[in-house]
Amino acid sequence: MNTFGHLLRLTTFGESHGPAVGGVLDGFPSGIEIQASLLETAMQRRRPDSPLSGSGRQESDQVEILSGIYQGISTGTPLAFLIRNTDARSSDYAAIENAFRPSHADDTYQAKYDFRDPMGGGRASARETAARVAAGAFATMFLQQASRIRIHAYTSQVGTVRLPGSVEPDWEKTYQYPSRCPHEETDREIQELLSRCRQEKDSIGGVVDCRISGLPKGLGQPLYDKLTARLAQAMMGLNAARGFEIGKGFAACSMKGSQHNDRWTADGKTEENICGGVRGGISTGEDLFFRVGFKPVASIGQEQYLLQQPGNRLVRQSIGGRHDVCCVPRAVCVVEAMTALALADFLLLDRSSTLLQHRPDSLLGGNR
Amino acid sequence: MNTFGHLLRLTTFGESHGPAVGGVLDGFPSGIEIQASLLETAMQRRRPDSPLSGSGRQESDQVEILSGIYQGISTGTPLAFLIRNTDARSSDYAAIENAFRPSHADDTYQAKYDFRDPMGGGRASARETAARVAAGAFATMFLQQASRIRIHAYTSQVGTVRLPGSVEPDWEKTYQYPSRCPHEETDREIQELLSRCRQEKDSIGGVVDCRISGLPKGLGQPLYDKLTARLAQAMMGLNAARGFEIGKGFAACSMKGSQHNDRWTADGKTEENICGGVRGGISTGEDLFFRVGFKPVASIGQEQYLLQQPGNRLVRQSIGGRHDVCCVPRAVCVVEAMTALALADFLLLDRSSTLLQHRPDSLLGGNR
Amino acid sequence: MNTFGHLLRLTTFGESHGPAVGGVLDGFPSGIEIQASLLETAMQRRRPDSPLSGSGRQESDQVEILSGIYQGISTGTPLAFLIRNTDARSSDYAAIENAFRPSHADDTYQAKYDFRDPMGGGRASARETAARVAAGAFATMFLQQASRIRIHAYTSQVGTVRLPGSVEPDWEKTYQYPSRCPHEETDREIQELLSRCRQEKDSIGGVVDCRISGLPKGLGQPLYDKLTARLAQAMMGLNAARGFEIGKGFAACSMKGSQHNDRWTADGKTEENICGGVRGGISTGEDLFFRVGFKPVASIGQEQYLLQQPGNRLVRQSIGGRHDVCCVPRAVCVVEAMTALALADFLLLDRSSTLLQHRPDSLLGGNR
Amino acid sequence: MNTFGHLLRLTTFGESHGPAVGGVLDGFPSGIEIQASLLETAMQRRRPDSPLSGSGRQESDQVEILSGIYQGISTGTPLAFLIRNTDARSSDYAAIENAFRPSHADDTYQAKYDFRDPMGGGRASARETAARVAAGAFATMFLQQASRIRIHAYTSQVGTVRLPGSVEPDWEKTYQYPSRCPHEETDREIQELLSRCRQEKDSIGGVVDCRISGLPKGLGQPLYDKLTARLAQAMMGLNAARGFEIGKGFAACSMKGSQHNDRWTADGKTEENICGGVRGGISTGEDLFFRVGFKPVASIGQEQYLLQQPGNRLVRQSIGGRHDVCCVPRAVCVVEAMTALALADFLLLDRSSTLLQHRPDSLLGGNR
Repeated sequence: MNTFGHLLRLTTFGESHGPAVGGVLDGFPSGIEIQASLLETAMQRRRPDSPLSGSGRQESDQVEILSGIYQGISTGTPLAFLIRNTDARSSDYAAIENAFRPSHADDTYQAKYDFRDPMGGGRASARETAARVAAGAFATMFLQQASRIRIHAYTSQVGTVRLPGSVEPDWEKTYQYPSRCPHEETDREIQELLSRCRQEKDSIGGVVDCRISGLPKGLGQPLYDKLTARLAQAMMGLNAARGFEIGKGFAACSMKGSQHNDRWTADGKTEENICGGVRGGISTGEDLFFRVGFKPVASIGQEQYLLQQPGNRLVRQSIGGRHDVCCVPRAVCVVEAMTALALADFLLLDRSSTLLQHRPDSLLGGNR
Repeated sequence: MNTFGHLLRLTTFGESHGPAVGGVLDGFPSGIEIQASLLETAMQRRRPDSPLSGSGRQESDQVEILSGIYQGISTGTPLAFLIRNTDARSSDYAAIENAFRPSHADDTYQAKYDFRDPMGGGRASARETAARVAAGAFATMFLQQASRIRIHAYTSQVGTVRLPGSVEPDWEKTYQYPSRCPHEETDREIQELLSRCRQEKDSIGGVVDCRISGLPKGLGQPLYDKLTARLAQAMMGLNAARGFEIGKGFAACSMKGSQHNDRWTADGKTEENICGGVRGGISTGEDLFFRVGFKPVASIGQEQYLLQQPGNRLVRQSIGGRHDVCCVPRAVCVVEAMTALALADFLLLDRSSTLLQHRPDSLLGGNR
Repeated sequence: MNTFGHLLRLTTFGESHGPAVGGVLDGFPSGIEIQASLLETAMQRRRPDSPLSGSGRQESDQVEILSGIYQGISTGTPLAFLIRNTDARSSDYAAIENAFRPSHADDTYQAKYDFRDPMGGGRASARETAARVAAGAFATMFLQQASRIRIHAYTSQVGTVRLPGSVEPDWEKTYQYPSRCPHEETDREIQELLSRCRQEKDSIGGVVDCRISGLPKGLGQPLYDKLTARLAQAMMGLNAARGFEIGKGFAACSMKGSQHNDRWTADGKTEENICGGVRGGISTGEDLFFRVGFKPVASIGQEQYLLQQPGNRLVRQSIGGRHDVCCVPRAVCVVEAMTALALADFLLLDRSSTLLQHRPDSLLGGNR
Repeated sequence: MNTFGHLLRLTTFGESHGPAVGGVLDGFPSGIEIQASLLETAMQRRRPDSPLSGSGRQESDQVEILSGIYQGISTGTPLAFLIRNTDARSSDYAAIENAFRPSHADDTYQAKYDFRDPMGGGRASARETAARVAAGAFATMFLQQASRIRIHAYTSQVGTVRLPGSVEPDWEKTYQYPSRCPHEETDREIQELLSRCRQEKDSIGGVVDCRISGLPKGLGQPLYDKLTARLAQAMMGLNAARGFEIGKGFAACSMKGSQHNDRWTADGKTEENICGGVRGGISTGEDLFFRVGFKPVASIGQEQYLLQQPGNRLVRQSIGGRHDVCCVPRAVCVVEAMTALALADFLLLDRSSTLLQHRPDSLLGGNR
């Protein structure tokens, strides 16, 4: 089940220390201009650009497109792409080849498959998100060329440092901040926190917020593929994701209906968009908000007990390899990528909902 | 996309005030004893058994099985079932036939399909969960006959009333408490809160917790169908769901790796199960925990402004119909049903993961 | 895998002698007028209207629609329907409850599921095609209201009686002929042949031809879901189907390219449509032809050896039950139904192929 | 829809003259030894080894495996592979960049996508079958290591030259014959015929037969994914396929039930296996036979009229490029590959059919 989506289907492959990661994006419509610069920017945003957050692994992340385009335009056939692993260092992992690290997927993959690639977490490594980001870049080209949908994710919390609620984040500049928190003061605090964590050979969790504007009204598929359900699936499938909220999220649990119910405005919108852009699992046309919570990265430099195989012997050891102190800054662009893929799929699906093509301004062709 | 699951596929149908709701459960293995009593108990648990929480709508919820069994045993062919709507009162909705209620899906369905069934929310009504509960009962029979998996959901919060963290809930007795909160004092508080809400013609949100025991190690499908991702999808597809957490959830976001990392025990388990039963999206064999947050029900008895169509006129009106003060008590069994469906599907999927059938004690046949 | 289709998905259920057969048609667009008369006509065409071909089983085949419509118009939500089995006579099958009939699916279902419903073939019975025909009627309403596609199947061969190649069949009147062969002389010959077979307590095979007109150019999905591939799948999934041909079919195997290659006309069509309406698995916009070959019905009145269980004892016996002498006359409308479902699905899929909506006259909205 | 299969899913990509063709095989179980020699042999069998049949295009068809294996064993994660196009000569196609060749998919792809890659047929080229053959080799490793299933396809007809029915083909040596017809005399006749066709700058059609032995009883999924239906889909999705038959095929159409019905033997098998190894769409455990008919290759060296774009001008021209005289000899291994993929998928699916694991000797683990 390495495939995401119904009409726009991303199938990814690749292990952390194998020859390459990559994917096939099937169902991508023809006629989309493939913009090399947009793809390159997306890949760069995922790279560690700071010694504070990053893992030290230096990958050029050059994306080779293998199919599906002709003279720079998509043909409607599968768009396959490849990212070579050039900085894999298997030697880092020799010591743990037969050991299960704490809170990693080493033992669960072993249990599931009775066999595994132990190098750098194999398929369970966040290295795989390089393929998601590349695919998300293609989906973004589609969204930009075929709709008004724009997606902005950003770091809203790392450890106990939170972006103040009173601050309006400057979404357009998110990627200018090393922490991906688009607020100068909070960004600096997060950097300091990450610096301390690195010194302590520790890691830390955090939260990514995402806001989507320009959504047409009517996206989402009843009942098991609601917009909420699909975004939740996409986000909870990310490495280290532990929580998902939409609109008011868990805060809504202690609210009353008279508070939480939106009030209509005379133009058919709402006064406060309390619902967060989705009603009945279907987009309202107003901005959509969601949040994803990430646990601290399991790989830390401190000595820990590993479970040596066979025999489950507890061995105290510090683990090599190059790991992020916090996955959140680099997760921001992955959240955007998966959101773009989900929304592009829903846009395509929505064309089949009704006999009438009654929404010329909101759907495909909307901005042309 | 009214289908849930890969190998065990539930397709449901039906509108709140149409002739019936129901479903087809395809991929259900042969040889399972279909227990009428288990099915009946499940349906009863979903019914409003208290004037405090319920909607007043009285449905017998008799499930008619149309196919897939012979002499009380499943045959492996699709299990279709039907629940007639006997207490539909369309007259309740005549007044709002051409109006969009606040925070309902009236306008989004209208936008999506350019046409809709306005009676009681049509397909967007929680009436549809009757079909999920019936299907979940079949999945539960499979889990009980083929595995040691047991699922226990319960109300952990309504409004600001929370089950204290120090309390060990008595899961076996959840359904003896009207609020589905298995703790006498909290249950009473919740009942009082719901009573006040009803008097105020208001509604309120809350949280359902779920704990799964007896899981084999190795369930879950990398990468886009992780156990976490699928459960999130299943839960965020429920009416009024606004948040999902697994393990420590959002609390993990402010933790450090040295705190959050599990410590192995010498038998290959963990000291505290901080990960909450899942690593890398795959079950660890330890108990799995998750939580679902629900917003307050949008239907309240107070006067509100509706958006009258055509022309988006704001009309102040109180809405008829019979609605829950809080969806949480009745959502408990729906959370269990969707969890059972998801896990049964993963059990079946898992049979194809490896060439070797190496886990005779944990998978199918495990308790036989 | 009781589901057919990608965007328009039919899931059927039901056993020959269970309470009912039926289905759920999900993905059916909103705004389609549901025509009771078209549905009724379709169901009547499937019924045995002649003592020669039919099984004698008298089913009223009343279709109850359970969901998905409001005031006679489709809402875009799942269209569920139910056909009660009213003339099931399980007593006919008591004698063979523990016996495997020759060339039936008794033993294969038993092997697959280790358990089966032996009454009248259970799920393997052609009784299930009632659900396909009902679903096909809905698909036909969609095709008629949203496209110019028209589907005409007819009997072209029974035993060695063939519709002469020189005859232009009168497709509009197919259902006026008991044999469904729209040519007076051939129809009479087939009736005589069927009458002889019935007297001999034997059965016989035959061929259904199908011609589709009004296809837009561009339907079909590369590579594994070509129009040819999907139609083949749909047809070879029918009871007793043994062969499928498209265009020249097997006759093309002994042709040369210089003969088989189509010659263009100046308006971008072809002189002879040798390709049969499909190139590269995608519709050309010209008429599409295919043929389906059916083996003789396995149920015959003559004494045969059955394989009595347990122990594989050979028992000579004539089998009761009411069976068709030839499935072909009744298969004609089933071929049409499955074709309609496949083409409606492709029409919906095709909306997502390209960024541009460049074919306003050929696709949805085409005839409005 | 460039994906084939349910649990074992092959997604392919690539254009004839793009950088590469390849695929991702997801759901491939762990623990399978990946045999380089078997893969290499499979690729060689697809290559033109005779000037008579082949296209002259010289591809090394080196398969690079990018993921899913560790130390030569499959890990259960996606198996991605890549075959570079090294002998693409786009210059061959410059002349027809804006022209539609007769009986090719040029115009249908153009109509579908409003844009296309015209080089060598793009995605519609049989070059893509290289990816199928590689994937089929992996599926064959699985079948050989996990079951007794063996697949043997061979050329049974080219033009009017047929393998005599009285001849028992020597399946083990099929690939020693240039025509892939394992009968010395027929092979020579076919070679002569192909030689004449080449001199005439013409092409010719033919038939591939396939026989599967060692099938367990019970494979196939009712109702829309019968073994017959899936094999038909797989075969009719091949380039130039025009017909599909199983068992007696169209010959069964003129037979009577008393002739076509199989007679049981006392060991639960049949005397003649008239059904061809499948009853009710499910394998009987006896050998399964099917045939695939192919039309002549559309590319011929003779002058033909092309449809020049824009404006549909008829232009008389001979087409360059390097093409097969007959696709059948090279299709033999593609038929085997798709059959292996379909059967491996069914083997995996079948594990979920029943609660009981009752067939230890026939399914996975069968030959261990």
